Amino acid sequence: MNTHVKLDEYEVGYDIPALPGMDEAEIQTPCLILDLDALERNIRKMGDYARDHGMRHRAHGKMHKSVDVLKLQQDLGHAVGVCCQKVSEAEVFVRGGIKDVMVSNQVTDPAKIDRLAQLPKSGARILVCVDDADNVKALSDAAVRHGTQIEALVEIDCGAGRCGVSTTQDVVHIAKLIDAAEGLKFAGIQAYQGAMQHLDLYADRKEKLDAAIVQVADAVNGLKSNGLECDIVGGGGTGSYYFESASNVYNELQCGSYAFMDADYGRILDKDGNRIDKGEWENALFILTTVMSHAKADKAIVDAGLKAQSVDSGLPFVYGRDDVEYLKCSDEHGVVGDPNGALKVNDKLKLVPGHCDPTCNVHDWYVGVRGGKVETVWPVSARGKAY
Amino acid sequence: MNTHVKLDEYEVGYDIPALPGMDEAEIQTPCLILDLDALERNIRKMGDYARDHGMRHRAHGKMHKSVDVLKLQQDLGHAVGVCCQKVSEAEVFVRGGIKDVMVSNQVTDPAKIDRLAQLPKSGARILVCVDDADNVKALSDAAVRHGTQIEALVEIDCGAGRCGVSTTQDVVHIAKLIDAAEGLKFAGIQAYQGAMQHLDLYADRKEKLDAAIVQVADAVNGLKSNGLECDIVGGGGTGSYYFESASNVYNELQCGSYAFMDADYGRILDKDGNRIDKGEWENALFILTTVMSHAKADKAIVDAGLKAQSVDSGLPFVYGRDDVEYLKCSDEHGVVGDPNGALKVNDKLKLVPGHCDPTCNVHDWYVGVRGGKVETVWPVSARGKAY
Repeated sequence: MNTHVKLDEYEVGYDIPALPGMDEAEIQTPCLILDLDALERNIRKMGDYARDHGMRHRAHGKMHKSVDVLKLQQDLGHAVGVCCQKVSEAEVFVRGGIKDVMVSNQVTDPAKIDRLAQLPKSGARILVCVDDADNVKALSDAAVRHGTQIEALVEIDCGAGRCGVSTTQDVVHIAKLIDAAEGLKFAGIQAYQGAMQHLDLYADRKEKLDAAIVQVADAVNGLKSNGLECDIVGGGGTGSYYFESASNVYNELQCGSYAFMDADYGRILDKDGNRIDKGEWENALFILTTVMSHAKADKAIVDAGLKAQSVDSGLPFVYGRDDVEYLKCSDEHGVVGDPNGALKVNDKLKLVPGHCDPTCNVHDWYVGVRGGKVETVWPVSARGKAY
Repeated sequence: MNTHVKLDEYEVGYDIPALPGMDEAEIQTPCLILDLDALERNIRKMGDYARDHGMRHRAHGKMHKSVDVLKLQQDLGHAVGVCCQKVSEAEVFVRGGIKDVMVSNQVTDPAKIDRLAQLPKSGARILVCVDDADNVKALSDAAVRHGTQIEALVEIDCGAGRCGVSTTQDVVHIAKLIDAAEGLKFAGIQAYQGAMQHLDLYADRKEKLDAAIVQVADAVNGLKSNGLECDIVGGGGTGSYYFESASNVYNELQCGSYAFMDADYGRILDKDGNRIDKGEWENALFILTTVMSHAKADKAIVDAGLKAQSVDSGLPFVYGRDDVEYLKCSDEHGVVGDPNGALKVNDKLKLVPGHCDPTCNVHDWYVGVRGGKVETVWPVSARGKAY
């Protein structure tokens, strides 16, 4: 399953936390571990959901940055390919053998455009998003220069407040430019409502997504009346995919976090008011950490701090324990409240990170465990691929 | 100057942001750049300060994780060696040729202890901190097993609220155990007051450090009356080094952030009420970022988000500009307020990160610039070395 690296080139405890065959207890911390059973169940569930609702499933590789996880999403979860956010990430997935790769983001730097335009030579379908008329010409010129074709989608800002145009008029304007550009093919609309994904209440998320659907439907109709059909109307996240699936407008889901789960997503509520990490999805990703000091009776100090995770969306929680709590984080330390003195030095804890995407991006490896054994070690293939 | 890697093995835009000789304008973003003139001035200034105040200067390598920066601190800043927080970091510095390496942290995992105990074979002086009696025996046994000697300091918690013992009685107890342990040598006290470093007001910082000095002095005297001399009484940070230097108790400074500066340190005030990044230290570290979308008139979207920095201590600020402001951060995007429409797509900005340590840890490279040219590219040698 490990597709990229020769594990025996790496030294355990120096540059890799474990090797396949080791006991879970021997894993060097802090590191990311994946519960492979939970991961596979999550992946099958989303894949089946998409298939059963007539939606294309394009897995979001920017979350895990792993060719191995992506291949599992293709094999078990009916994923057609990947979306990611950077040209260098797309290069990783193309070099890893993925055949349908979308950069669900703008690419404007001339050197990056030049790299992107060469990727179709691999035989992969390459897609990119556009929200700027000048960018159309730059992308097309590069594709022509390299004798390739890039498929381009117009990005709509339907609530994320970042990239993307806001009006159907702008969508149609840019889509026509794409359609007329020699090196490009018009592929549809990218419309991810990012800002609503983490609203706790289902009804609040639905209200935001309903508004997005109206906006996207108007754009699709505007394109149609100008003779432009959308092969892809894409978006959807772990907090919204059921809305896009029921919309009759979207046809592609691009969820990421469902596969691993994290604390920030886990606390949002489903239709019935239950946390989505208590039934809808399982925690498959953990930061394994070790107690390294317990000099105060009520506090254990663990070895996972800011360099083992991102706390932008809050602190991690300790998985499967109500008696201890991760209270504070500094560069190399976490302070865990241990009021009953339940922990001792060298005990291990599993932390569910606040936000999986940037947490995965600080680690080099996923240690896949099953039945108390290390089954596989996967590189975080696109870690640090920010360009 | 680049001590570890063959740069021509790396592909610009895929796995490295630039190569020496390139123009600054050609650097691929987002990435870390170092203003080499500012960096050298900061390093000389701290080194001269320590020398002039009779203090040993041990540079904190956990901030930059770079053998190249550390060698500059030895060459220009009179640093005797390095301190760092993890065994795998210590291994990087030892392999990089550094001869005096302290793990200013607890090492309790048996596999890590075993690795640490082998490091003196390189010829380097190896030091570690202890706050637990059982740990003394484990460290000593490993050193004996490998025929080496580890120097051990007792860590005092003088306000950081993490590792470290709290009373002179505990310090003396553990120091005696170290002194009696066959594989160890008692080296002194580690006493870093981390919690006060970021208090804005000089007087508030002084009050906290004065209390720490009283505590540390009591421990030093307690040891002395038990026949134990401290070779090292170490601590000190960018917000406090003048207090330790004037204490007549501390003899070693272990500052880190002064060399690069960041937004969180920059805003603390010196004795005269001036921000320390307006005179005392210069910003030498920046995240170089590019505007990739400007679909809204008053907002520019840049390519540096959570995967290019840690925002645990707040958002970055845009260096040298009052007209634009970094407002919001998501995984791959930053939203920059641009009320006057001053920015356009592909413009570049320099961001001063909120917190340098965990920000450096997400990047693979430092691009050293001088006079508009890339002069050097240094690996973040110990990036991801969390074990």
